Amino acid sequence: MGSPAQQGTALCDLNLVNCTIIDVFAGRFLPHSTISIRNGRIAGINDNLEARKTEDMGGAYVAPGLIDAHVHIESSLLPPCEYARIVMPHGTTAVIADPHEIVNVLGYDGMRYMLNASQDLPLDVFFMIPSCVPATDFDSAGASFYASDMYPFLQDTRVLGLGEVMNYPGVLHREPSLLDKIALFRNAGKPIDGHAPGLSGADLSTYIAEGIGSDHECTTPGEALEKVSKGMYVMLREGSTARDLRQLLPAVTPESAMRFMFCSDDRHSNDLRDEGHIDYCLRLSLKNGMDPISAFRIACANAPSWFGIKDMGAIRPGYKADLVCFSSFENFHVERVYKNGKLAAQNGQLVVEMPKLAPPIRDSVNIKWLTSEDFIIPDKGKKVRVIEAKPDSILTENRVVEPLVKNGTCVSDLDRDILKLFVIERHTGSGNIGKGFISGLGLKRGALGSTISHDSHNMIIAGVDDVSIFKAARHLNKIKGGLVFTIGDQVILDLPLPIAGLMSDKDADFVIERLKAFDMVYHEEGMLNPEPLMALSFMALPVIPKLKLTDRGLVDVEHFTTVDLYVDD
Amino acid sequence: MGSPAQQGTALCDLNLVNCTIIDVFAGRFLPHSTISIRNGRIAGINDNLEARKTEDMGGAYVAPGLIDAHVHIESSLLPPCEYARIVMPHGTTAVIADPHEIVNVLGYDGMRYMLNASQDLPLDVFFMIPSCVPATDFDSAGASFYASDMYPFLQDTRVLGLGEVMNYPGVLHREPSLLDKIALFRNAGKPIDGHAPGLSGADLSTYIAEGIGSDHECTTPGEALEKVSKGMYVMLREGSTARDLRQLLPAVTPESAMRFMFCSDDRHSNDLRDEGHIDYCLRLSLKNGMDPISAFRIACANAPSWFGIKDMGAIRPGYKADLVCFSSFENFHVERVYKNGKLAAQNGQLVVEMPKLAPPIRDSVNIKWLTSEDFIIPDKGKKVRVIEAKPDSILTENRVVEPLVKNGTCVSDLDRDILKLFVIERHTGSGNIGKGFISGLGLKRGALGSTISHDSHNMIIAGVDDVSIFKAARHLNKIKGGLVFTIGDQVILDLPLPIAGLMSDKDADFVIERLKAFDMVYHEEGMLNPEPLMALSFMALPVIPKLKLTDRGLVDVEHFTTVDLYVDD
Repeated sequence: MGSPAQQGTALCDLNLVNCTIIDVFAGRFLPHSTISIRNGRIAGINDNLEARKTEDMGGAYVAPGLIDAHVHIESSLLPPCEYARIVMPHGTTAVIADPHEIVNVLGYDGMRYMLNASQDLPLDVFFMIPSCVPATDFDSAGASFYASDMYPFLQDTRVLGLGEVMNYPGVLHREPSLLDKIALFRNAGKPIDGHAPGLSGADLSTYIAEGIGSDHECTTPGEALEKVSKGMYVMLREGSTARDLRQLLPAVTPESAMRFMFCSDDRHSNDLRDEGHIDYCLRLSLKNGMDPISAFRIACANAPSWFGIKDMGAIRPGYKADLVCFSSFENFHVERVYKNGKLAAQNGQLVVEMPKLAPPIRDSVNIKWLTSEDFIIPDKGKKVRVIEAKPDSILTENRVVEPLVKNGTCVSDLDRDILKLFVIERHTGSGNIGKGFISGLGLKRGALGSTISHDSHNMIIAGVDDVSIFKAARHLNKIKGGLVFTIGDQVILDLPLPIAGLMSDKDADFVIERLKAFDMVYHEEGMLNPEPLMALSFMALPVIPKLKLTDRGLVDVEHFTTVDLYVDD
Repeated sequence: MGSPAQQGTALCDLNLVNCTIIDVFAGRFLPHSTISIRNGRIAGINDNLEARKTEDMGGAYVAPGLIDAHVHIESSLLPPCEYARIVMPHGTTAVIADPHEIVNVLGYDGMRYMLNASQDLPLDVFFMIPSCVPATDFDSAGASFYASDMYPFLQDTRVLGLGEVMNYPGVLHREPSLLDKIALFRNAGKPIDGHAPGLSGADLSTYIAEGIGSDHECTTPGEALEKVSKGMYVMLREGSTARDLRQLLPAVTPESAMRFMFCSDDRHSNDLRDEGHIDYCLRLSLKNGMDPISAFRIACANAPSWFGIKDMGAIRPGYKADLVCFSSFENFHVERVYKNGKLAAQNGQLVVEMPKLAPPIRDSVNIKWLTSEDFIIPDKGKKVRVIEAKPDSILTENRVVEPLVKNGTCVSDLDRDILKLFVIERHTGSGNIGKGFISGLGLKRGALGSTISHDSHNMIIAGVDDVSIFKAARHLNKIKGGLVFTIGDQVILDLPLPIAGLMSDKDADFVIERLKAFDMVYHEEGMLNPEPLMALSFMALPVIPKLKLTDRGLVDVEHFTTVDLYVDD
């Protein structure tokens, strides 16, 4: 710690001279500035401190590191170390992750895995504990996560609060087990993230009064402003699918900017690598006329305020020396990234060592032994319900049709684009198989299967014939989860995701390449839906209307009830 | 709690309709608004909720309750209940108090007393634990307060953090017992207030990096901006003596407003009653051109952010319904004050019941039996040091003069305005008496005495003759502390302050009247210093240059050393 009074004057490790600092506190630029760094933290700003090393920034802007306020890392299909590898060159130095997907599969072990797998990364990965595991009572998740399960994690300094409370009806109806979770975090003075698409008026006020203080589901400026005025932090989301940022910009003014954050929520690895991350949010915002001070408050400073992180979000003595450097607001591109005072990335290339993949977690795919018999859908001389999927929406229609019958069984009907659909419980080997039909994918042969199906992530397979379907199921079991396309007994393409059936153990380039290969297959096979596996991943989510299939059967989401596949006339 | 879903729609207690809400979150006005209140908290904003009672605000502005971010309640000479009585009609609904004075006198008991005495008030009184008790090693305080003494108070929900760290040299020199205190609060994630007049550059950065996050001692816009840019919250102080607000206004812009707060620090009861409190800060700021949104963020919203208070500072669902109503920014006057949803004051008059004075605390004046002999200053044929007090400053000069000698003793010399000065240890009956001389008061006869003398609050008496001085000492002992003016053996005027020798047990009007009577006496007696007792109260504070007197003798503050009264040629 040095002798008395040395603290302020001890030799620094690095002086960055000739910086134009983005001062997020006073809301101004500080040109011709020097940032002094010691032991990975800011030691001084224009304080005439001596340093071992000096770098001339040539007048470049220097801002605090960028922060993603809400992300499901699992959506990138990458483990935390590979996720860090692709986002850090874009200027991201911290993310607040909600490991909702892996915890639905592996519960306590999943939460612990994400903490372990992210602990020694140059990227700071913080966590919000998933609040809604299981998401519903209509299907079988791999785990449940109650307040008592969460309690041990509260002690972890990287666990910040309670993750998005998607079950807002549960808040309004005062469901005891949900209120237990909220009370646990509220009493600890920790933040609780919200998820309340379209909620307004008295219901919104009730939701907020329960202690839920943020939302990332706004889609109009009016919705955002009501939420801000009622005290919420609003996250401007730019995911791969949900791209809400641009529409929300009119709500952001210099007066209100301190109540907004950027987040990606769900963003694919190729978008992260090629389009960007929070730097992309900044680029969009600046291009659309947001003033730079507001933009960087939103990108850097506000998340630490909301989440109670005490040592990042600004260039301030004592804070981590997490910095991004760039030359222009008009054509915003991060040129250098410093993490804990060390150069971490330059011109889009990572220059720090990234730790190896964390030790593997237990296998997550545990299905009861299947036979081809399991995929028979008997004809009962009745009409059947069909999930009608649409491109660009996770909402479905609920159709009732006369099935195509062959040899006494209902089969896929290519003429009408009606495919057999199965959801196979994969956590406990229960043997549950939900059976149904789906239209709108446009698959002409073979079967598509995945172990990603929100939120319980059971195995979901749609296919033309039983041989392909059976093969897809067996292959997904063999590769411990992932994505697969089969034709007959042949695997055409797969992407193994052995970490909980959700994340790859390979590097980002491998994952991106395989996903591109899937895109080519979709195209070659002439499918209607541009992302049929993505579409499938929402077909087992029984909280999005209208008709969905779980391992326990069909769910009529509008009436919040299970329904039979067969319909009496 | 009501049946499911009733929470949001249960009958409210009160609807305030036709309000123009000051929306401190989005930074805008919400005209034609309705605020719904239930169980003392905001239930909704424009949510069409039904209420038992409706009040039409006629378009008036409605803002959150005003908050004083840093106050020594003791400086008003009032106990917390009487303090609340005079500040609440001015719109103050919460204060963050640092009971530095009473804790210097009574330690743990003083801290506990302030918590008890403020617990059932309509005013919310929060506390920062005094960090510098005792303030120095040069005198004898009534108590010491180490990290281990503070720990039990951390559990109290009204204890927010560590009070102003005045001992900034101690931070820079890494004094272990001070760092212990800082670590205690820092590890608990609680705020630590600063006090760093003029500190800048590397020293300021070191002070901030240690975790100290606010300052209320700025006197120039440049000083304030450096502190804000380095991450501090800066308090704009408008006390009775230290009136810094106006000078600091150029530092406040809409971009930086979120990093400022108002505070009074030390404000007399007459100023509080007649001039105002935080409403006065608002009035000054608005008159000098501050935009209203910034002004109310500073007056209401920012203190809860800094101090981590989770349910006040804005009109927000779930927050306390603490509201101030007024008609104009140009001529800003608080017309109505609601506290916890109930009308608390109207047109300057309190309309809620104020709890009675808390049960008395133990007597604080404990002096060794005195005789008139104790006040003799023998002549040693040498020159003596004289503290030269100046009007409007607590800085003193260090003079050396030939004393006036009568009957072998040094005596007061009216021709040169040199009075005998004594500081009598009053906490432990040690018999310590510091002896010296003071010029600049202009007292022509009698003696002035007080048990208020920062920071240890020993008894301080300046007088023309030993009889008056002896009488003053005896009377202060008799009334258990307070202020006194004696002439010979007669008490001309007193103000008993039996609570720790610092606060009255009478009401605010009595205190204000007595203080006015003292003012008249000063005037009638033709004194040079307009507030000689106030001046005296800083003459024993051995951290303010140049020469001060403690119960252990004279202190040369510039050289941080004790010095003898007598000076060899």
